[in-house]
Amino acid sequence: MDHQLLADILQSVADGQLAVPDAVNKLRHLSFEDIEFAHVDHHRSLRKGFPEVIFGQGKTADQVTGIMDKMTQQENILLVTRIEPEKADAVITRFPDAVYHPDARMIVWMREKPDVIGRGTILIISAGTSDIPVAKEAFLTAQAMGNRVETIFDVGVSGLHRLLSHQEAIQKASVLIVVAGMEGALPSVVAGMISRPVIAVPTSVGYGVSLGGLTALFAMLNSCSSNVAVVNIDNGFGAGYVAAMINRP
Amino acid sequence: MDHQLLADILQSVADGQLAVPDAVNKLRHLSFEDIEFAHVDHHRSLRKGFPEVIFGQGKTADQVTGIMDKMTQQENILLVTRIEPEKADAVITRFPDAVYHPDARMIVWMREKPDVIGRGTILIISAGTSDIPVAKEAFLTAQAMGNRVETIFDVGVSGLHRLLSHQEAIQKASVLIVVAGMEGALPSVVAGMISRPVIAVPTSVGYGVSLGGLTALFAMLNSCSSNVAVVNIDNGFGAGYVAAMINRP
Amino acid sequence: MDHQLLADILQSVADGQLAVPDAVNKLRHLSFEDIEFAHVDHHRSLRKGFPEVIFGQGKTADQVTGIMDKMTQQENILLVTRIEPEKADAVITRFPDAVYHPDARMIVWMREKPDVIGRGTILIISAGTSDIPVAKEAFLTAQAMGNRVETIFDVGVSGLHRLLSHQEAIQKASVLIVVAGMEGALPSVVAGMISRPVIAVPTSVGYGVSLGGLTALFAMLNSCSSNVAVVNIDNGFGAGYVAAMINRP
Amino acid sequence: MDHQLLADILQSVADGQLAVPDAVNKLRHLSFEDIEFAHVDHHRSLRKGFPEVIFGQGKTADQVTGIMDKMTQQENILLVTRIEPEKADAVITRFPDAVYHPDARMIVWMREKPDVIGRGTILIISAGTSDIPVAKEAFLTAQAMGNRVETIFDVGVSGLHRLLSHQEAIQKASVLIVVAGMEGALPSVVAGMISRPVIAVPTSVGYGVSLGGLTALFAMLNSCSSNVAVVNIDNGFGAGYVAAMINRP
Amino acid sequence: MDHQLLADILQSVADGQLAVPDAVNKLRHLSFEDIEFAHVDHHRSLRKGFPEVIFGQGKTADQVTGIMDKMTQQENILLVTRIEPEKADAVITRFPDAVYHPDARMIVWMREKPDVIGRGTILIISAGTSDIPVAKEAFLTAQAMGNRVETIFDVGVSGLHRLLSHQEAIQKASVLIVVAGMEGALPSVVAGMISRPVIAVPTSVGYGVSLGGLTALFAMLNSCSSNVAVVNIDNGFGAGYVAAMINRP
Amino acid sequence: MDHQLLADILQSVADGQLAVPDAVNKLRHLSFEDIEFAHVDHHRSLRKGFPEVIFGQGKTADQVTGIMDKMTQQENILLVTRIEPEKADAVITRFPDAVYHPDARMIVWMREKPDVIGRGTILIISAGTSDIPVAKEAFLTAQAMGNRVETIFDVGVSGLHRLLSHQEAIQKASVLIVVAGMEGALPSVVAGMISRPVIAVPTSVGYGVSLGGLTALFAMLNSCSSNVAVVNIDNGFGAGYVAAMINRP
Amino acid sequence: MDHQLLADILQSVADGQLAVPDAVNKLRHLSFEDIEFAHVDHHRSLRKGFPEVIFGQGKTADQVTGIMDKMTQQENILLVTRIEPEKADAVITRFPDAVYHPDARMIVWMREKPDVIGRGTILIISAGTSDIPVAKEAFLTAQAMGNRVETIFDVGVSGLHRLLSHQEAIQKASVLIVVAGMEGALPSVVAGMISRPVIAVPTSVGYGVSLGGLTALFAMLNSCSSNVAVVNIDNGFGAGYVAAMINRP
Amino acid sequence: MDHQLLADILQSVADGQLAVPDAVNKLRHLSFEDIEFAHVDHHRSLRKGFPEVIFGQGKTADQVTGIMDKMTQQENILLVTRIEPEKADAVITRFPDAVYHPDARMIVWMREKPDVIGRGTILIISAGTSDIPVAKEAFLTAQAMGNRVETIFDVGVSGLHRLLSHQEAIQKASVLIVVAGMEGALPSVVAGMISRPVIAVPTSVGYGVSLGGLTALFAMLNSCSSNVAVVNIDNGFGAGYVAAMINRP
Repeated sequence: MDHQLLADILQSVADGQLAVPDAVNKLRHLSFEDIEFAHVDHHRSLRKGFPEVIFGQGKTADQVTGIMDKMTQQENILLVTRIEPEKADAVITRFPDAVYHPDARMIVWMREKPDVIGRGTILIISAGTSDIPVAKEAFLTAQAMGNRVETIFDVGVSGLHRLLSHQEAIQKASVLIVVAGMEGALPSVVAGMISRPVIAVPTSVGYGVSLGGLTALFAMLNSCSSNVAVVNIDNGFGAGYVAAMINRP
Repeated sequence: MDHQLLADILQSVADGQLAVPDAVNKLRHLSFEDIEFAHVDHHRSLRKGFPEVIFGQGKTADQVTGIMDKMTQQENILLVTRIEPEKADAVITRFPDAVYHPDARMIVWMREKPDVIGRGTILIISAGTSDIPVAKEAFLTAQAMGNRVETIFDVGVSGLHRLLSHQEAIQKASVLIVVAGMEGALPSVVAGMISRPVIAVPTSVGYGVSLGGLTALFAMLNSCSSNVAVVNIDNGFGAGYVAAMINRP
Repeated sequence: MDHQLLADILQSVADGQLAVPDAVNKLRHLSFEDIEFAHVDHHRSLRKGFPEVIFGQGKTADQVTGIMDKMTQQENILLVTRIEPEKADAVITRFPDAVYHPDARMIVWMREKPDVIGRGTILIISAGTSDIPVAKEAFLTAQAMGNRVETIFDVGVSGLHRLLSHQEAIQKASVLIVVAGMEGALPSVVAGMISRPVIAVPTSVGYGVSLGGLTALFAMLNSCSSNVAVVNIDNGFGAGYVAAMINRP
Repeated sequence: MDHQLLADILQSVADGQLAVPDAVNKLRHLSFEDIEFAHVDHHRSLRKGFPEVIFGQGKTADQVTGIMDKMTQQENILLVTRIEPEKADAVITRFPDAVYHPDARMIVWMREKPDVIGRGTILIISAGTSDIPVAKEAFLTAQAMGNRVETIFDVGVSGLHRLLSHQEAIQKASVLIVVAGMEGALPSVVAGMISRPVIAVPTSVGYGVSLGGLTALFAMLNSCSSNVAVVNIDNGFGAGYVAAMINRP
Repeated sequence: MDHQLLADILQSVADGQLAVPDAVNKLRHLSFEDIEFAHVDHHRSLRKGFPEVIFGQGKTADQVTGIMDKMTQQENILLVTRIEPEKADAVITRFPDAVYHPDARMIVWMREKPDVIGRGTILIISAGTSDIPVAKEAFLTAQAMGNRVETIFDVGVSGLHRLLSHQEAIQKASVLIVVAGMEGALPSVVAGMISRPVIAVPTSVGYGVSLGGLTALFAMLNSCSSNVAVVNIDNGFGAGYVAAMINRP
Repeated sequence: MDHQLLADILQSVADGQLAVPDAVNKLRHLSFEDIEFAHVDHHRSLRKGFPEVIFGQGKTADQVTGIMDKMTQQENILLVTRIEPEKADAVITRFPDAVYHPDARMIVWMREKPDVIGRGTILIISAGTSDIPVAKEAFLTAQAMGNRVETIFDVGVSGLHRLLSHQEAIQKASVLIVVAGMEGALPSVVAGMISRPVIAVPTSVGYGVSLGGLTALFAMLNSCSSNVAVVNIDNGFGAGYVAAMINRP
Repeated sequence: MDHQLLADILQSVADGQLAVPDAVNKLRHLSFEDIEFAHVDHHRSLRKGFPEVIFGQGKTADQVTGIMDKMTQQENILLVTRIEPEKADAVITRFPDAVYHPDARMIVWMREKPDVIGRGTILIISAGTSDIPVAKEAFLTAQAMGNRVETIFDVGVSGLHRLLSHQEAIQKASVLIVVAGMEGALPSVVAGMISRPVIAVPTSVGYGVSLGGLTALFAMLNSCSSNVAVVNIDNGFGAGYVAAMINRP
Repeated sequence: MDHQLLADILQSVADGQLAVPDAVNKLRHLSFEDIEFAHVDHHRSLRKGFPEVIFGQGKTADQVTGIMDKMTQQENILLVTRIEPEKADAVITRFPDAVYHPDARMIVWMREKPDVIGRGTILIISAGTSDIPVAKEAFLTAQAMGNRVETIFDVGVSGLHRLLSHQEAIQKASVLIVVAGMEGALPSVVAGMISRPVIAVPTSVGYGVSLGGLTALFAMLNSCSSNVAVVNIDNGFGAGYVAAMINRP
């Protein structure tokens, strides 16, 4: 339930258009709703400016749709992350307006397209083609939260000229998300070029001592560029989310 | 060399008050200066809005003062991080205007106090008394970069009422830095209360499976609150720096 | 070593009734014969108050039913843990009275429902919906061991109001089991609210540096709340078992 | 501030023996007191039945005495853990009634000896002589919290007869704390003998792949005896604390 | 090629029954034979008293049979370890005399049953039922190498009386192999009872912080009993082999 | 920074031909424009002497063929590494001239066979039969880059005579690639025999504490022979590539 | 108390030369003796053929001498391991007959030189000069337990000819102890040459990814030679002990 | 003993100028010399083109000088690595011609300056000032082995223009050594610019998840540039050695 929706209900009460008992009914789940397997946090979009996001991993399709049933009654937008194709199919069947993005393993449901509210542009850069799914998850999240988002893919540090040819876009971005696997060097190089915050996302792309992304993660945390903060391995969603928070006016 | 200083030099040339060869001389180290053991990056304050910060660990006192000799000629402010007392003494002797903060192991040298340029307040919260040195490093950095900075210390999650009593300060901050060792739970709890970006700083406070801060770090990267990004263990400086970047207008 | 026994042996030697080599032989195993005497063949349900639990992982269905054949002749209740659906089917076919709980991967066989013998209520709290299977394993175990057990699911630390709304149940519980994956922060917060023992169960829910539950485990072991003890990752059974032990009159 | 003290104050108000403003004054720090570097949690002894314990590691002697100044005004007993000799000397000088136990690295200050309130006896068993300091920390904690505590030292699993000779004490204990380094096998063996909860404490005693206690910790978490829960490496204090919680009536 | 076979060939030459060129032909692969993908080490049974053992993992069925083709011409016995059922089927089809043991994942081919040459009995003890496959691999290896081998299964440390009831067999064994997963405590307890060498075999049985057997391995390497040496996780073959070496006259 | 360029800009300012803000602008990006000038768009085969190699893992077949469509128009040779059979089939269908090597999981496409340009012979040695796939990947890479390449397979250190029988080939090689899993000892032994650079390739062959190749990797990095440098686990491609670089005239 | 001593006492009783109460007195500590901080295991030399060895690390000098006071009354030989020079000095002052070996950090006390009882020769081989202290600890232990022990030092695998020149000694040894740090390759090479059991001892010699000896340990556990079993890092004592057990008739 | 020295001795014999027994005497230590604690490998300079290098860590000053006594009789040059100042002083006192380089912790002794025999120039690049000691060790080693060596220090990836200004030197080098701590990104960037082999040296510079250099090491092993091979953490010596091997004609 977002801020506007709450104000509208209260205004209706003030205007005598909504009886108090009806308003009570509408608001009584304001904080959260306890269904058998979940406490649906309806208060979150008021508190945090964006509704709870459903973490699909480890939940059954029934649990996901059960939570969505409750939330779609009160929210304008809804994201489900880390949801595999079979489960996503079951969800889409129940919510035909929702869209599944298989590379990002993400469902986006929205009543209407969100307004752009971010201060500037969020730029997402990925080191390799194999990192695109994670970058895509960041893209969908940041966009759903009301931001202009641009992308530059496959500009790893072994061929710097590719990266340097995008100087203009890099210089004018407000927040940057840099996605890289393997040695995770790209965020350091990008961050060294600008005076804007960089959210670094390590990916599990690689083998051997890439250690499922730990090496890229640790490299990013050790960046010799100081304007870098880091999220979990493959956490495109978190990067998009925190970048949106930074980009708020 | 910062933006204003460069404009001033050029204006003097335009005004005929500074001869071209003299200006060349002043600007010829604009990019960097190669001293025996370092490439001093004078261009950085133009490119990044803040001069290079000297990482004290592993450098001799002579190397630190050698770099400072070059930089203090062109910059208004200068930070040295992770510098031990004995080395700091040698540096302070050479630069009596510099101040050493022993708990934060940091030297701050400034020609004049920086203007406040940040959009809002940066709030630094620490979980325990033992985390204060790291919080202090973040404080000094963010302040030196032109921000209003406030602090709340020792409000760990085992006594929530202490944290909750600071709701107002938490709600009105623009960016938050949350510093915690041991289980590193505080950033999740704080971030769950607000819709602002949280920079989480794990500390090496703890023993046994605190693993020198790895546990707090990993916990923070796994935060169930999505508005959290993380920096390296004990990296108060990096947290202050990236928070300052976020807080720029 | 029993003083009298030793004197008797020596007296027999002195009396010439026991040859020296025989005496040496008797004395060589003295401590181990001691041991054997001390362990008269009480079986486990006498010694420990609950029959041996069958660890299903790595056993064939035949091995499981073979053990059950023997045990169901002497016991009133029997648990099989970590047993996959196919193997469970084979077991259920052989023991139609047994019940398989697929989410908890557990078989419960009982001749009759156990009496409630626990002193108070055991309360099981889980951080997320995805942690429910582990919580369920704890629930079934504690219940089978004769306890009143209650549950609160999906009250993670990113939305504290959900947890705080259950204050009453939390305050009146005798022992608490707190189940959480990801950053594993919930046990610290819950334990900080009460003066009862908390058994923390880390789960493997998460990705990246959740490290299959290691991060949650280490966080719980580093809890800044002191009334927390921890069991292995995903070990709902162990948590239920030790909580039942604590709850015994 | 403990429960009785609070009831007394309120009774004095009810009896007219204490003016309301004076009572307000007495109670206004009830929740916590914010000194420069710490939020002293006076509410804790009401909430948790035992006052906050001061974690000495990483605090200066001044910080420790500063916190003690506040707490000794309101509490009957006070513990400082992980405090090194030099710092302890400074503290003892300021609080001559406090006692420093160098092997356990612990300061115990008490207004008067606590009553025994525990239901039964807490038995502490250590595998080796080198594990005694950790066992001692558990002993002092459990005793300070009002328990009868007994100890058996140096009964490792390589000579079982030593352990088995103490069968009687083991069988009659209410809660057991088992302290072991190296391979950490002792808790499994002890727990297999009884139907009481065992709190296992791994120690950092050992070398090579003892990995500073990680091996003992992991072994204990994998115990094939189910009545075992575990605390952090060398965390004798936590073991004593949680055992005391379990032993409460 | 074993020692006897070589002596026979040479005697035939001495006796004039074998022409020198024919003997050359027989002996020319004595050292090794280079087939496309392998250097078959025919010299090994002379050098080490037992022919090369084929490590099945990572080899194709064709590679295994190719090596066996060469070796069965010169050896009396042949082992293939870590070979999965499908590959084993292909091998057995080609060598119908070979026997596949699916639980131990091992193929044993022998021209005739080996004589018992070991000095005493090798006793194999396993902690749990799930550890039996590894114990079986040790059994088959030690037996193939000419030893009397006995076994005791499922005598874990959580019920010591089971172990202690086998005192006699344990005391009279010449070498012991002790197989355990989880906390890996059994070798310490067994070794503490005797004055014979114990080869400890950690298994990957367990979950969570059993870490695929690392915990059992490290526990065994930290054994407080000194007569313990250790082999790799799940390496039943290695344990059987080194025990056979120890048991040689 | 080019001295003349800087003087020119300043002269323009002095001459009033360049406004101060424009001059500031020109100087702000000076170093990066520098960079761009230095990187005229040589493509990679000009810069590095060999075209970009396509890392197949994590790419779809469509992405691989899409990249190949572009590259085959301009290159003579093209490698795709780490590509699984199904994806490789799709690629081969589109590029019938390309050859898929299933053991090395590699596609080689070439317009014509490359000339031999290497200074000497590259010798590839593998410890076991199971290491051959990685050795094969190195072989194909080095050969494609214009080198004479020889191989010796299955000469592990447990039977030194096999290795020593190849002394001549080992002594005359120009660069050596040594491939080994398990304990990774072979590179040390080989490197100790010669005065040529050895590129060591750890493989994931093994089990238990082979840790997926980490043990072999670490062993090789700790080689007591100093003429050893190491590449990532299973990185036959990288070993072939760097050996080819070393072997260039 | 060893076998002979026990038989002598009993014979004196049988001969009427020793009264029963006096014999009881002599034998009453046969099992163990409980001093304040230790259970001295007097039964061990009967059970295991060698008295308990005192692990010096983590014990005070007083504790060590306290245990020695009890044991020297009943044993012929006594070892203290891992004892630092200052503590050793205090012990030697109290027991002037004891000898401290500073490189091996070991105290050896003996009433008289032990008879040689081992079947053959134990050969200790070390890879480097820096590994000698560990090898020395093994040497002293095996010798004290009644074995002929020989040594070959500094024969690492980077110069095989040094090792191969000692073929004869290697071939005729009964049991081998091979000590190596860094990549830990030596046991594989030595074991490949013989058909005798090899006890491998990893040392912490090295830096970087030697990881304090973990790399050598893991390499040894992955040995491609099957006649290798391993003890803990730097555990020369354990290697000597288990080799002595193997070498018993 | 180098190649020329051996030829000279033999020529003297052929010329009748050296009696055979005298020649035997001279050559009898050709292979190695067994002093009490070391096998000095005199054969190495013939086999490997450079004499054995003494690894100082873990050796006493007496052991180092003992080995040097033997080697300086037969070699022209001698290196001691990882030797601390106090030990170095003792060595220099005995060999006044030797030079100790304290930052590189290295002693260089040479009879005369070596001829330059390398094909091209070896270029050593370091990321930061703190990495210089490791770079210096590489420099001294490569120079001692007869190479032209150049250096560029402090050109980390957070300020690319510093690196790019050295394009010319980078392009004309024959072999490159790139030294970096923290995130270890520099080798990838440098290697992407050239078609020459790059030896990457991770350093332990950094803190937190730099993990003592492991992060830099793993990042380098995962380099997206293929012309990179890696040596152990802080192993400047190894890098210099292998670069010299590559640079041999």
